[in-house]
Amino acid sequence: MPFAPSHILKPLPLGQVRIDDAFWSDRLETNRTITLPDVYQKCKKTGRIDAFKLDWKPGKPNQPHHFWDSDVAKWIEAAAYSLATHPDPKLEKLLTGVIDLIVKAQQPDGYLNVHFTVVEPEKRWSNLRDNHELYCAGHLMEAAAAHYEATGGREFLDAMRRCANHISSVFGRQKGKKRGYPGHEEIELALVKLYRATGEKRYLDLGRYFVDERGRKPLYFDVEARARGQDPKQYGAYHQADLPVRRMKTADGHAVRAMYLYCAMTDVASETGDKTLLAACKRLWKNVTHRRMYITGGVGSAKDGERFGADYDLPNETAYAETCAAIGLVFWAHRMLHLEPDARYADVMERALYNGVLSGVSLGGRKFFYDNPLTVYPRASDPARTGPSGHVRQEWFGCACCPTNIVRMLASLGRYVYSQGKNEIYVHLYAGGQAEFEIDSRKVRLTQKTRYPWKEKVRLAVHPEKPGTFTVAVRIPGWCRGASLKVNGRGVNLARITKKGYAKIKRLWKPGDTVELMLPMPVERIEANPNVRANSGKVALQRGPVVYCLEEIDNGPNLSEISLPADAALRAKYDKNLLGGVTVITGKARRRDDSSWKDCLYRPASSKTKVVSIQAMPYYAWCNRKPGEMLVWIRRG
Amino acid sequence: MPFAPSHILKPLPLGQVRIDDAFWSDRLETNRTITLPDVYQKCKKTGRIDAFKLDWKPGKPNQPHHFWDSDVAKWIEAAAYSLATHPDPKLEKLLTGVIDLIVKAQQPDGYLNVHFTVVEPEKRWSNLRDNHELYCAGHLMEAAAAHYEATGGREFLDAMRRCANHISSVFGRQKGKKRGYPGHEEIELALVKLYRATGEKRYLDLGRYFVDERGRKPLYFDVEARARGQDPKQYGAYHQADLPVRRMKTADGHAVRAMYLYCAMTDVASETGDKTLLAACKRLWKNVTHRRMYITGGVGSAKDGERFGADYDLPNETAYAETCAAIGLVFWAHRMLHLEPDARYADVMERALYNGVLSGVSLGGRKFFYDNPLTVYPRASDPARTGPSGHVRQEWFGCACCPTNIVRMLASLGRYVYSQGKNEIYVHLYAGGQAEFEIDSRKVRLTQKTRYPWKEKVRLAVHPEKPGTFTVAVRIPGWCRGASLKVNGRGVNLARITKKGYAKIKRLWKPGDTVELMLPMPVERIEANPNVRANSGKVALQRGPVVYCLEEIDNGPNLSEISLPADAALRAKYDKNLLGGVTVITGKARRRDDSSWKDCLYRPASSKTKVVSIQAMPYYAWCNRKPGEMLVWIRRG
Repeated sequence: MPFAPSHILKPLPLGQVRIDDAFWSDRLETNRTITLPDVYQKCKKTGRIDAFKLDWKPGKPNQPHHFWDSDVAKWIEAAAYSLATHPDPKLEKLLTGVIDLIVKAQQPDGYLNVHFTVVEPEKRWSNLRDNHELYCAGHLMEAAAAHYEATGGREFLDAMRRCANHISSVFGRQKGKKRGYPGHEEIELALVKLYRATGEKRYLDLGRYFVDERGRKPLYFDVEARARGQDPKQYGAYHQADLPVRRMKTADGHAVRAMYLYCAMTDVASETGDKTLLAACKRLWKNVTHRRMYITGGVGSAKDGERFGADYDLPNETAYAETCAAIGLVFWAHRMLHLEPDARYADVMERALYNGVLSGVSLGGRKFFYDNPLTVYPRASDPARTGPSGHVRQEWFGCACCPTNIVRMLASLGRYVYSQGKNEIYVHLYAGGQAEFEIDSRKVRLTQKTRYPWKEKVRLAVHPEKPGTFTVAVRIPGWCRGASLKVNGRGVNLARITKKGYAKIKRLWKPGDTVELMLPMPVERIEANPNVRANSGKVALQRGPVVYCLEEIDNGPNLSEISLPADAALRAKYDKNLLGGVTVITGKARRRDDSSWKDCLYRPASSKTKVVSIQAMPYYAWCNRKPGEMLVWIRRG
Repeated sequence: MPFAPSHILKPLPLGQVRIDDAFWSDRLETNRTITLPDVYQKCKKTGRIDAFKLDWKPGKPNQPHHFWDSDVAKWIEAAAYSLATHPDPKLEKLLTGVIDLIVKAQQPDGYLNVHFTVVEPEKRWSNLRDNHELYCAGHLMEAAAAHYEATGGREFLDAMRRCANHISSVFGRQKGKKRGYPGHEEIELALVKLYRATGEKRYLDLGRYFVDERGRKPLYFDVEARARGQDPKQYGAYHQADLPVRRMKTADGHAVRAMYLYCAMTDVASETGDKTLLAACKRLWKNVTHRRMYITGGVGSAKDGERFGADYDLPNETAYAETCAAIGLVFWAHRMLHLEPDARYADVMERALYNGVLSGVSLGGRKFFYDNPLTVYPRASDPARTGPSGHVRQEWFGCACCPTNIVRMLASLGRYVYSQGKNEIYVHLYAGGQAEFEIDSRKVRLTQKTRYPWKEKVRLAVHPEKPGTFTVAVRIPGWCRGASLKVNGRGVNLARITKKGYAKIKRLWKPGDTVELMLPMPVERIEANPNVRANSGKVALQRGPVVYCLEEIDNGPNLSEISLPADAALRAKYDKNLLGGVTVITGKARRRDDSSWKDCLYRPASSKTKVVSIQAMPYYAWCNRKPGEMLVWIRRG
């Protein structure tokens, strides 16, 4: 895989990375052996897969929805990633069967979308704003590229090329074409993947066109609404189509759409060297990560429209923070990192991965969160959050984007751990296993041993085929103060070699050289910017990259009544019997004495409190026992 | 006015009470001379009054809405109250003109509703659940009774009797009648008023029927939906029509509807002596005031459906707390008080009046709040609360129930101050002025002098025509600790004579006897029940009956960053130059230092804070200067 023109780093192909890790292996194994087949079964059962047979007729059940194709596509993508790391003839056969169905469902002109083939064929390409034809095509292209990379099979890739060619014949600036772009971004980044898989520049050009055309006047969504005989509705920034992408200053509108668009902008910038586009990406990055991101890496705070709220508007109980949006943030951070190797991107990637992404799937692998609030009160009156069990993971959703996204995210986790530079090896994340690099036509194997994020030590061993001079760049996480590093057992002055958050160890590496990194992990109380009014007077607990929360099962109800004195000692303790092994945080806190209240609603304030023991759990692991209240931001006091 | 059979107290007719008070007179004068004409003008301008000419035709502007009649009715009711205390020939003439229009709009069979006469006559009585025919008729009956009481004119009253007779011919349990009841309660309490004004028991019977029939199976709203050829929608408890009223245990559904229903239940219980109905009222009262009421007396916490939330679910920022619902709570408390003279009812009545009701209208008298949140952040992303100015009072609403409700509430304030018992005078509220009672056929004049709620002293003077033995019952407010009382300058042992919150002074009263009440008013920090999670770790400031808030104009933005140490001294200070004279609370509090944050969103917590001066304003007076943030519940710290 070549470097993109503006890439300083390139990701490693999935097949070159093996994860063998105390923390991740269980999760990835669950993902591969439980979630992946489970998502297939649910796609099958709900008719999403058989829909490609194109035999739906009015009156029959399971009318294909216009975004169903994307769910199957994401399952294929996940299955392909799985094959890249874990060959499995049975899975490969199943996959081939599904792909065959899809390829056969493609229309002679290359068009591919089940809904607009069998349900409303007359509406093809008539409403890019609301329908998801380009979005689905994009996911199918990503799936095809992944399948090609994993298996070398070209059938699906060729089908998606024909599909892309068809789309290219319909959309563009040339006379006779529609000057449209998708209402839900996705195809732009997929076209860049298709370009990278095939080398055909027309796909990059089409992706670039979609990015560039977006938000130009006259707004295409208005034009096509009028063509349908409808009044254009005012959607504001919902689809990020209210102004051209280079003029965007803040991350607005539907958060998943935004993340996919920013990924595509970064991709196009990486392939074209377009500095104005990169500047927009960096501006948007700052807006998201400095003002609009939860401590969990969740983004898109507003439930209404699943969208970004205003700067610092990060409510906890109504936090939407869709699992897909956190995944999108990981995608975007990973892309930015390859253009500009700066640990700030990897810090955000890690924050989202260990918290707002991983919370999206149960430890058992069969249940999912769509939205990821930071405070849950099952007894609240919000109808969407009410009920005896409150906010709990669900087995499936009518809009099933999150389960299918998380299965492909975890199946491709290896991509995010390392990158290869021109004469450099980058280590972004800490997870045991190994990876193969090629430096100056020399193979270099790197092994990693660690019990991160529970333990502070990471041990890397470098195994070049033969000795050679190159750089191993090791990320010093932003959350860490007082990191130290040894090479072959000798301490290194970190301050001197650290650049943009990476300790750059340039030396003549010989087989078996070791790097030992110590990342002190005290339990930290974290405070939020004073403009985040939801967190005034509160702290969150974090240890290493892991954000913690209180659950009712450990701490009783009315979690908001708990306050944590500044001087209360907090202790981290690994409990191997709890949920397959997690590090919990314990300590003493305070609660108001609630025994004398009875029916009184308001009374003159007393300052009487009692000491209580608390136990905090990793946020990602919440709601894997008895459902109940949950709280990330704890009152100081 | 006779006692209702189960009444221990009866209200004084409005004409027997004069308010001449440092706090209230300005507000009532504004209500009479500015709000009352202003509401008339807005009813006129929006077509609500001319709608009664019945000359609307399809295609013309100002299509009469099905609840428009009620706005005009409430204006008439307010105008009638105003005439009872402030004769005004010009107003009386204007009123007569409007009433003439209404009477002429009545159909030959007695039916009266503009919308269903000129817009959709075919839909008359076809959808009690959603349409507001009975609701409007109820308000017109209340208006007619008030007009009759104020002027003795019978024309409007007779028209509304014909209307009630018509309704009685349509609804009821007898064969051939519809077993319906209103989707928005109101007519039930109005029919009791009509009964009291006319002495005709059929109106009481009809009101009682509506109360009793409500929620019985088969549910009428389902029956009529099917008759319209529609699937019955599941509205749950929205209309309080999911179960019979005597089985209701919690206050649920639309809050204004609930309040009007509970008023009617109390009215019917007072006239019939129905103990099961009274028991239901008391159960609901406890649920509302022990678990579902804001400290301001606002009720109905959920914006979605303007309805009650679950027990203790009292969010501050999204508090709906409709002005009409607080007014409804005053109506209900006043009714309960006459069945069971207990200061707990008067405490709630006072709490709502000075806070959640009075906040509903600007000091200038021309702007109104429909909903009354307890925290406002203008820069929030909630679309309904966003915009440069945030949550500010509006000049009018498409649904104009609140302005018309507050104008009638304030115009009848005199009703709420005193009650007459069999051989007793009750003083519920403290407001300067005088009232005329009749005890044992003896006229007793009572004068009240006070600067309540700013000052602690209340001085009552009792002037019987001739000396006589009776009881003057003086409310010791629930918020007050350490009240003391003197009769003719001599201290009285309050504990010995206080019963259910009223100091009962039974003696031989001679003209000029005085009662002096001292109600100490320290600034109090109030805490909420630990189950009210929105107020965990917070206190509200209250002095006397007045609840305070912080406003941005006095305290800068990010009010949630302010924390109030338990030992910080708080001082009350009357500022005669501020908003026509208010008592403000000042003191020292703390804020995080926000100077070093810049673009950082999360960081290890520091406990550094700085001392800041704060000034709190009465909640009712907020948003009468530059709009901005507002906060009632302040963090402890």
